[in-house]
Order: sequence, then C-alpha cells, then structure tokens
Amino acid sequence: MIKNFVQYIELPQPTLGNNTADVERLKNAIKQKIEFNGNKKNIGKSPIFFPTKLATHLPSKLRKWNHKLKVVIFKNSIGWQIIDIVEPDRDKPCFGIAADLGTTRIVLRLINLETLETCGEVGFDNPQASIAPDILARIHHTRTDRGLNELQELVISAFNENIKILCNYKIDPESIYILIVAGNSAMTHLFLGIDPSFLIREPYIPAVNAPEPLEAQELGVDINRCGMVYLFPNIGSYFGGDLISGILFSELHKKDAPCIMVDVGTNAEVVVGYKDWLIACAGAAGPALEGGISDMGMTAKPGVIDKVKIDPITGKIDIHTIEDKPPIGICGSGMIDLASQLFLSGMIDIRGKFVPEKCGKRFFEKDGGVGHLIVAESEDGIGSHIVISQVEMNSLTSSKAAMYSILQVIIEKTAGLQFSNLEKFYVAGTFGSFIDPKSAISIGMLPDINLEKFEVLGNSSLEGASKLLTNPYLFDEIDKIREGITYIELNVNQEFMNIFSGAKFYPHTDISRFPSVLLYGAKI
Amino acid sequence: MIKNFVQYIELPQPTLGNNTADVERLKNAIKQKIEFNGNKKNIGKSPIFFPTKLATHLPSKLRKWNHKLKVVIFKNSIGWQIIDIVEPDRDKPCFGIAADLGTTRIVLRLINLETLETCGEVGFDNPQASIAPDILARIHHTRTDRGLNELQELVISAFNENIKILCNYKIDPESIYILIVAGNSAMTHLFLGIDPSFLIREPYIPAVNAPEPLEAQELGVDINRCGMVYLFPNIGSYFGGDLISGILFSELHKKDAPCIMVDVGTNAEVVVGYKDWLIACAGAAGPALEGGISDMGMTAKPGVIDKVKIDPITGKIDIHTIEDKPPIGICGSGMIDLASQLFLSGMIDIRGKFVPEKCGKRFFEKDGGVGHLIVAESEDGIGSHIVISQVEMNSLTSSKAAMYSILQVIIEKTAGLQFSNLEKFYVAGTFGSFIDPKSAISIGMLPDINLEKFEVLGNSSLEGASKLLTNPYLFDEIDKIREGITYIELNVNQEFMNIFSGAKFYPHTDISRFPSVLLYGAKI
Repeated sequence: MIKNFVQYIELPQPTLGNNTADVERLKNAIKQKIEFNGNKKNIGKSPIFFPTKLATHLPSKLRKWNHKLKVVIFKNSIGWQIIDIVEPDRDKPCFGIAADLGTTRIVLRLINLETLETCGEVGFDNPQASIAPDILARIHHTRTDRGLNELQELVISAFNENIKILCNYKIDPESIYILIVAGNSAMTHLFLGIDPSFLIREPYIPAVNAPEPLEAQELGVDINRCGMVYLFPNIGSYFGGDLISGILFSELHKKDAPCIMVDVGTNAEVVVGYKDWLIACAGAAGPALEGGISDMGMTAKPGVIDKVKIDPITGKIDIHTIEDKPPIGICGSGMIDLASQLFLSGMIDIRGKFVPEKCGKRFFEKDGGVGHLIVAESEDGIGSHIVISQVEMNSLTSSKAAMYSILQVIIEKTAGLQFSNLEKFYVAGTFGSFIDPKSAISIGMLPDINLEKFEVLGNSSLEGASKLLTNPYLFDEIDKIREGITYIELNVNQEFMNIFSGAKFYPHTDISRFPSVLLYGAKI
Repeated sequence: MIKNFVQYIELPQPTLGNNTADVERLKNAIKQKIEFNGNKKNIGKSPIFFPTKLATHLPSKLRKWNHKLKVVIFKNSIGWQIIDIVEPDRDKPCFGIAADLGTTRIVLRLINLETLETCGEVGFDNPQASIAPDILARIHHTRTDRGLNELQELVISAFNENIKILCNYKIDPESIYILIVAGNSAMTHLFLGIDPSFLIREPYIPAVNAPEPLEAQELGVDINRCGMVYLFPNIGSYFGGDLISGILFSELHKKDAPCIMVDVGTNAEVVVGYKDWLIACAGAAGPALEGGISDMGMTAKPGVIDKVKIDPITGKIDIHTIEDKPPIGICGSGMIDLASQLFLSGMIDIRGKFVPEKCGKRFFEKDGGVGHLIVAESEDGIGSHIVISQVEMNSLTSSKAAMYSILQVIIEKTAGLQFSNLEKFYVAGTFGSFIDPKSAISIGMLPDINLEKFEVLGNSSLEGASKLLTNPYLFDEIDKIREGITYIELNVNQEFMNIFSGAKFYPHTDISRFPSVLLYGAKI
C-alpha cells in the first residue's frame, strides 16, 4: 500500500547469494511496497513496467546512493510504471499538475506529489476559441488541412506557457512528472491530436474512450522528459472525462443511496446512481441544448447580470451584477433567474411567451420580433440596451425543457426511480455553481425536490483531477467507474422526444410535478 | 489463440446500440481472438495496450476499410501491444528480423511474419571489435568518456547497414515491425546503451535481466517507426539471452528426462534440466576459460586447421584445413582434435606435457620454452611454422579441465545426477558445432557418455530468435523459462576449485570416469 506517487525505497544490497539484476531488485522492492496491505500481500497482482531507458545509468546511481533512492511511479491500464528514479535526499519536491480542460476555460493546478499541497493555480481561456468558439465548429475545423494539428498545437502551447507561469521561475519544469487532464470527449480528442469527426455523427462514436497515458515529450508538453500525461477516460461522445473526474470527486460511485450529478455547462450531462450502479446520459446534441443556454448571454465576468429579482406587485426589476460593476450583459444563471422572475410575476405565460399587459413599458416590438427590456440604455455600462427577445426566451424554454426531460428519462424511465428517491443532487461544473436551484425549479428546469438536497460541487473536473494526484490507487477506481457505467444515447431516444413536448411549459404541463412553484408565488 | 504477429480482424459495425469507441471496439476484437482457445475462453486475462498515437487517424481508416483491417501485434512483460494497423488487403508483407548478437559475429535473419518464411540472412563481424576484441576490454572501454555510447552506436549502425542489405532495395524497412535480439548479457547491455560495469565485478550484478521491449526509434534502429525491439532476457552476468534463446529452440524446458545444453563459445555456459526444473551456470570468469580456448588459435576461416589425425605407430600428422586451403593456423576445435591425438599417441603425458622421446624431431626448445611443430615452414600457406607451445598446451589443459569441472559441479553436485542420466547432450553455439565429441571425451573435456546422445544445435541463438517470430505465445514461455531457472555462480564456488585440480589430467585423475578413452587407444 503506497500513499503517493513518490516513494522512498531501500534495496537489499546485492551479494553473491542475492545476485538478481539491479532493475529486477528495484522492481521487486517497489512491488512489495505496492502490494503490502496491512497484514495481507497481494503478491503478483501488480506488474511493474520499468522503461529500459531508465536502466542506462541505474547501476552507478544505485551504488552512489548506497541502494537508497526515490522512485516516481505511475499507473497505466495494464500496470504500474516507473517514471523516474531520483536521489534519496533530493531536496526539491516532485510535482504533478491537475488540469481542467474546458471548451472555454482551462485551469491548471500545481500539486506537490509528496506533501500533496497545492502550490499554485492558473486559469486561461482555451486558445482554440480563436479558431472557433464552440466544439462543433472546432470539430468541423479538423477537416481542413492541418486543422487538427493546429487545434492541438494551440492548446499544448497554451499549456506550456501557463506551466511556465505556474512554475514562476521558482520551480524547474523538470520537477513536474505527471499531468492529469480532465476534459470533455471532444477536447480530449483535440488535446491528443486524435480525429474527433465521428463524435458528432450518428451513431456518435469516439475514436477512443480510455486513451493510454503517454509520455509528455510525445505530446510536446514541457514537463520532465520522462513525465507522463493521463487523460480521464470518456464514456461516450457526450459524456467525457470531466464528468468521470466529477464522479471521482463527488464519490457518487460509493454512495449508499441513489444520487445524481448534473453538469449544466455547454452540454447537459447527467449521471445517476450509487455504489451498485451508475447510469449516464448527455443531451449535448439534443434539439434544444445544442447551442447551449449560455449562448444567449455572456460567460460570467465583471458587469454581467447574475441575479434578477422582479417585484410581483410593482414589476420593478432589481439586478445584481458580478463585482457590482455597471451591467454589460447577462449570463446563463442570470437568465434562469430572469425567466423564473418573469414567470412568477406573470410577465411570461406558461408557454414562456411575453404578456404585453404585464410587461408594460418594458415590452417592445422591433423588426417583427418582441422583447423585454431588462436594463435601459442610460444605466448601461456599455451604452446600449440589455434586451431579451422572445426568440431568446424560446431558446431558454427549449433548453430548460431538454434539461428536465433528460433528468426524467434517466431517473424515471431508465433507473425506475422517482426524483424524491434521490438523496443528493450534485451540481457540477463552473456554470452550474451559479444557478439558484429555486429559480431553476420555478421554471421547471430542475425537479422540485428538497432544496437541501442540492449541492454545488464547483469545478469538479479540476477537483477530481487533483484528487487523482494524491492517490495512485484511484486509477483503478476510475477504471471501475468507467467500466461500470451504462451510457444511454439520448440523441435518438423517442421517449425523450415525447417527454420534451410536455416540459416546454412553465413549469410543466403536469403541475403536480412542481407543487413548490405555487408556494413560490406562481399564479397558474 | 492466434498463430502469428499479423492478424486480420473484422470489427462489428458501430451502431447506436453498439456505440463503444473505435479503439475499444478494436481492442475487444483482438482480445477475443487472442483469448479464444478452442472451446474455452480466458476472458480478461490478456490486457491489450493500444498506443494513443495509433488512434490519431483510426476513425477515418476504419471507415475507409469498412471495419476490416490487419493489426501487427506484440507482447511485453505486462500484456499485448498493438504495433500498427494496416489496410486489410495490403499486398506487401510484414516482416520481422531475428538477430544473433555475438561478441565476434552478428547474424540477421529476415522473416515474413505472415507466411513465416525466411526471406534472407546476412552475417557480419561485430564492429565493436574495432575498439576491443573481447567483452572484458569493451566493458572497460565504457568507463571512458562516451565509451558506452560509442559501442552502442557502432553496433546499431552495423544493424542498420545490414538491414538495408537484407532489404536489398526490394523490401521497405517500414515493413519490418519486430526485431528480436539474442545476445550474451554484456552484448545485450551494450546494444541497449546500458552501463555493463558491474557484470564483471563481484558479486556480478547485471543492470537488468529482462529489459522491457522498446520502440525501434528510441534505439535508432531503422525499421518501422512504430516497430518494437525485444531482447532475450539474461539469467545472470554470464548466462545471457543467447542461451535462453537456445533453450527455447532446443525445448529443453519441455523434455521428459534431464538433458544438458552447453555453449562452448568464448565462455562456457551450461544449462541442465527438463520440464520440471532447470539449473544454469557459466564459467566465463573461471580461472581457465577466461581467455577462451580459441585464443590459442584462430577463428574458423579458409586454411585454418580444423581436424588433426596422428598415426599412433608412425607418429605421422595428418591435417585437414577448412576448404582444403594451405594451412595458416589452427582453430579451437582443431586444437581439441590435436590434443586428443597427441594424448592418444603418447606425445603428451597425463599432465599434458610434451614427451620429447615420443614427439621426436617435431619437439623443440626455444627461448626457454618447449613446443611441438605441427606444420613445417615449407608446407605452410603463410610461410611460417605452425607450432603449439607447452604454454598453449597448458592453457588448453586448464580450459578442458574447467569445462569438465563445470559439468561435474552442475550435474553431480548441484542436480544430484550422474552423467549417464542425461538423455541428450546439446551442443549450442557456432564454435561447439565443430567439436568432435570423441576428441573432446579423449582429453576429458566432455563426459564419457554414449556418442549418440550428443546433438549439435548450430546457431541456437539465432534459431531461438527466429522461432519467437513465428509464435507470439512464446514470450510467455520465455518468461517461464527465465523465472524457472536456478542460476549458480561458479566464480566463487569452492567445490568447483577442488574438482578443477583433478580434471587437469588427461583424461582425468579418476580414470574410471573415462572408460572409453582406453578403447580409443590411450595407454595409461
């Protein structure tokens, strides 16, 4: 039983009676350390891969170090692997990096592999956005000459630049031995330079679900030349490594009662289950969520409206912006708040259509469309109206309906549970963290369960990747999670389409599903 | 159950109901093929490593080939590995190369991995001889600046040149996927660029016994860029991969009764056993064989004396030279023949000393030493006497005594057998092929057993390497051989030293060990 990726080893001295080779002597010692578990030993169950190149100067090093050393270890799908051997009294630490590889944003976290401390974090925009903001367009770009290489090079270069920033001239990148990356299936393919074309075409087949870890130098990542890069495995085209990382972090796979984890990011990905089973599905290519909720507004940044309150009596709109800066737009969670308040105040009807007599002077018509003025020009940070059109509202309606339908299909139709059976409702992903569950319930986007069951996980993708850097045995747990998950393809699910129609109302055609919404003040 | 390294695979078409990723679909299909063994399946026992770089364009290839393809597979210590994927109707064959990496001579053999035919063979001198002719001096050379790299580069370059010759402009080296190398422990270390210093210092520890296979490009070997290089494992410093290859070829490890395999090359390596156990030892650094028998003469080439006959009555010497060319020297097997004839004709006594009255005019004294003229100047191809001095004869005496002592220690003292219990006496290695067993018995070098039990294996190192290219499961057999062998270190064996003294007589102090020698005409 070992506790982290850097192990101190003392080898028995070679003698005429113990004359096995240096590599085999070392492998045996590491094997014993890995397999020794309290009083029991699982001898022979841990094959160890010792790359031949590390043997080059092993004999003189071992003798110089008096047969004491530290080894940096790793694990691939087949067994344990030795990344490097270092002097036993090395004073500079060995590091690992956990990465959340988002479509929009990337975050790297530097972790000391021995003390398990976090030593720094850096976030940056995914540079592939310069070619295409969304995944679909990036995948199309890979069909152009060198398009795939270009996208890969962009993201690897950005990793390298930010690894330098993370090291801040104080840490030698040679001291970084492991890079763990959690991203969605498309981003994982692009990071590895693997053709992602078939992810988005029926029957939606990834090139690879569980890519073998590779050497950093093979990918061009500037860490130790023997360093290893691991990417969290996908389950399917629309259920990626970021979610598996989230499961690892939330420990959904160890719970005693069914729980659900939902990532409402660019796609809507859902996994439900507990220690006995896990079922996953995603609505990324679904008819409504295709463009993503956040398309209607902006990603969260200072000045973006993230909370909205409408007085049901006076109709006065109260907004809150990030960092209290003058308003410049609205983000996804703000939109959900807005829709909820518009509905509770009667300004939109059960179909999500603006009710002119309730909206009053904020309602307007322009270019054949109708809309609702949230912030008038004069109050506005960028000098223009902030307006939600009926078209945008319809899009939100479709999105929230798709979200609920996905949840209903997986919970009721697939798992055979009721929403009330769920012990916990984990909200994963950065975007999800900002959603007010009460608002989401009001518009019928999330199920009407006890608010206390909702738990925000934050950047669960980054947290799962960081967790993996603190315990080598978690690789096995990830394999178990991956192999144990049943993945449902929603793109072609007829049940989903039927349910979807009923969910396009506020909060739902079946109001008995949302008793609390009446308490929140809805007049239906 | 698969029969060779190139497998034709038909994948199930991906559908919405069978939407696993391309890599995993392929791995499953290969796994089934490997594990399906008649009616039984050993599901899950064959982990498969699919290098991530092969996934890059896998999706479009699979679809272009309509989910039919050929895979080139390989096996490392932990599991199966995919080397490459090729089009299903590829007309050019995939090849492998078997190599006997000798200290003096190297032989490469090209084998079609699909038909298993031998397509060519090329032999060349080990270019490291330009730095030092013997292993000891080469190992010392690695202590100089860049000495290790220099020796490695020499041998790798020679491989590359000769691979070109083997391909003869007809075969693309990219079609060569596997290189199997069998060499002694020192040569294996030097080929891999691994420090061999501690092989020759007590307690004689190799850097590595079973090096992991590596990518050809990592070693700089010019075959397919994804090609793999496998080196037969060592058992110890003086029992190398060439011997393991020989065991694989002779199938010693499968015999029903104890057999022995002896390689009388530069070193004397011995393995005895059968299906239940194997014991190995080597006398390389032993007091007598250190310089090697062949030091006294020349390696086999045209004009070298390889057979000697002395008429016991007239004392007339009859020689045979290779290709019947005028005599220019004597080789090791010729020396054994000569010693045997000198002894049987009474020209040397039981201590191996020349008997002047028997040698007659051929006996001479010069510079304080004595000698025996084999060929006089006038008959000689290079215009000088061919003479064996008493010093050289003493060296042969030590060598033959060491050989017999090694055999006695391993058979009688270690395995607890009698020589007569041996069912077969395999002679491995090129040098051994030329030894006349009767002559070797006459001088007490090989045990006095039924001559029919002797069997010459030829270049068993090359044959074992070639055999491995015809059956991927033999990797497991090699691991079993390696793990099952008990290796005895003779360098420090007191029993050996005691026995050695008695074996320095012709044929032996204990004449009852060699009853046949009297029948051969010895007068003792």
